[in-house]
Amino acid sequence: MIPVKGYAAYDASSPLTPYDFERRELRSDDVLIDILYSGVCHSDLHQVRHEWGNGIFPMVPGHEIVGKVAAVGNKVSKFKIGDTAGVGVMIDSCRKCNPCVSFMEQYCVEDMTGTYNGYERDGVTVSQGGYSTKIVTNERWVYHVSDKLDLPGVAPLLCAGITTYSPLKYAQVKEGDKVAVAGLGGLGHMAVKFAVAMGAEVTMISTSPSKEADARKLGAHHFVLSTDKDAMKKAESSFNVVVDSISGNHDYEYLLKLLCLEGKLLVVGLPSENPEVNPFELIKNRRSIIGSMIGGTVETQEMLDFCAEKNIVADYELINMQYINEAYERMLKNDVKYRFVIDVSSLK
Amino acid sequence: MIPVKGYAAYDASSPLTPYDFERRELRSDDVLIDILYSGVCHSDLHQVRHEWGNGIFPMVPGHEIVGKVAAVGNKVSKFKIGDTAGVGVMIDSCRKCNPCVSFMEQYCVEDMTGTYNGYERDGVTVSQGGYSTKIVTNERWVYHVSDKLDLPGVAPLLCAGITTYSPLKYAQVKEGDKVAVAGLGGLGHMAVKFAVAMGAEVTMISTSPSKEADARKLGAHHFVLSTDKDAMKKAESSFNVVVDSISGNHDYEYLLKLLCLEGKLLVVGLPSENPEVNPFELIKNRRSIIGSMIGGTVETQEMLDFCAEKNIVADYELINMQYINEAYERMLKNDVKYRFVIDVSSLK
Repeated sequence: MIPVKGYAAYDASSPLTPYDFERRELRSDDVLIDILYSGVCHSDLHQVRHEWGNGIFPMVPGHEIVGKVAAVGNKVSKFKIGDTAGVGVMIDSCRKCNPCVSFMEQYCVEDMTGTYNGYERDGVTVSQGGYSTKIVTNERWVYHVSDKLDLPGVAPLLCAGITTYSPLKYAQVKEGDKVAVAGLGGLGHMAVKFAVAMGAEVTMISTSPSKEADARKLGAHHFVLSTDKDAMKKAESSFNVVVDSISGNHDYEYLLKLLCLEGKLLVVGLPSENPEVNPFELIKNRRSIIGSMIGGTVETQEMLDFCAEKNIVADYELINMQYINEAYERMLKNDVKYRFVIDVSSLK
Repeated sequence: MIPVKGYAAYDASSPLTPYDFERRELRSDDVLIDILYSGVCHSDLHQVRHEWGNGIFPMVPGHEIVGKVAAVGNKVSKFKIGDTAGVGVMIDSCRKCNPCVSFMEQYCVEDMTGTYNGYERDGVTVSQGGYSTKIVTNERWVYHVSDKLDLPGVAPLLCAGITTYSPLKYAQVKEGDKVAVAGLGGLGHMAVKFAVAMGAEVTMISTSPSKEADARKLGAHHFVLSTDKDAMKKAESSFNVVVDSISGNHDYEYLLKLLCLEGKLLVVGLPSENPEVNPFELIKNRRSIIGSMIGGTVETQEMLDFCAEKNIVADYELINMQYINEAYERMLKNDVKYRFVIDVSSLK
């Protein structure tokens, strides 16, 4: 077994503290990664606090992982020692169902194995995440990362990045399309960067005037204050795509109204209360509401290659592992632009 | 001017009674149709009772019209006297916007002109519908109808038919797809017929066991009682498409759960209260909710040609014009299989 240092939640109400544990010895198709950086996703907080009711403790969170390949199993074909590599939200799936065979493993009919707070396919081994020095996992769920990219900023691509890239591709966003992004956090800021890089004309929709300068810095071409009724009225029926990355409670109606003929509302934000849909707004312009969850292994690699080509990374604030509990408190106040990323060297 | 006999609502609370009025003399691109049959759509009832807040009285309802061409303007190219022809929900639009240029005139950015209870493009002339002996309208909004079809059953195709055909085509339903239809009324019964004709394996979802025999008669291959929790659980994630034709209040969650990878919930039913959407069910399987409103002129002709090829008409109960007020009361009790169609000869 391979000894690993990490930070874990021991229960749903205690702060994260140091935790020593072990990773399995490499199987023939496994890759061992020395972790350099691990992004801090809002879902980490939901899970360590047992807010989704599925906590397995002790829990080492982290599913936005970048590091260096330190060893490979004897049948590994995609990686060699020294490669820069990433791991995202999932590390396995049934590999046999229709979604798995189509490389959309995140929709596995037997459910994907989460990178942490999940059970491996044996049904008993608990998966542990990236707030740790090393990870061992099957090469199918490991991705190549270009060394040209700023590596701490790559970590959030593995969740926030693919979560916004995948629906934009599914909606076939292209040069000249008009895309609105609602909500400017970890997901929203990536949606702006990707939509701009895909050639769209991008508008940030926000309740807060203070977001305008930030949105423009990220590349947004326009800004509409969602509380400005005249501006929202003027924006009706003008967008091909609206990305809804809002995690607070809200309805879909004001976003649906923004969509033109065959426009698509891409839902990636997950409010705790179910939004209402006005079906009259839905049938107008033949609008769609489309849900999307991270992305499959092939598409995740495609996204990382796209980022290397376009030089896209997330905006981040680098922290030491020891700062994680304060980082969580700041995340609850939305006091981060736009992702905390743990410098895993602080763990050693 | 051309004298016409019809039935009209004089206000929101009175029964329909005889009404003599006039149609315009033919313009160069107009067609005059002697109406044979006019379907009775549930939206007729909403509008004559001013339930949508937009009633213009006196109002001659009816937007499912079949008849014979009696005269044509000197620039009409598509029709000649004696042709069997249909008119649907719209009779004009701006003709210039992107949806109009794409023959999706129902989504005209300046709003289509409804066949009745609307204003012509001059902004003052009130349009009057098919509960009448004759109609004059621009040939673009007139369709060829095969004489091989049972003509009273064709009338409902012009609204209930195209309303369900269009989203099934937009969702690219094909041979072997699994399609569920929720709600068995005017729309639902057409959705079953079309989905079967497109080669899908069709399941009726209903709250009422009594609908099973009816659904099978229409061609449905399976039946699931929506109150049977075990059966609904078993049906989860198994359909490519669910057609929601339910006009009563309901949520979308139990229908979303039925959809497999990239499955589509096609919304054509319009409940008065906004349904809720559970976004977790939406992101699972990358599901979509798609709204759809009737169909454009090109697609309406395509639908009628498809019906001629496959010998599809609506199931109907033929009534005399004088029976309309009783028919409305029976519609309110869902006591019709599945459309009343007025024999317009009863007006003469």
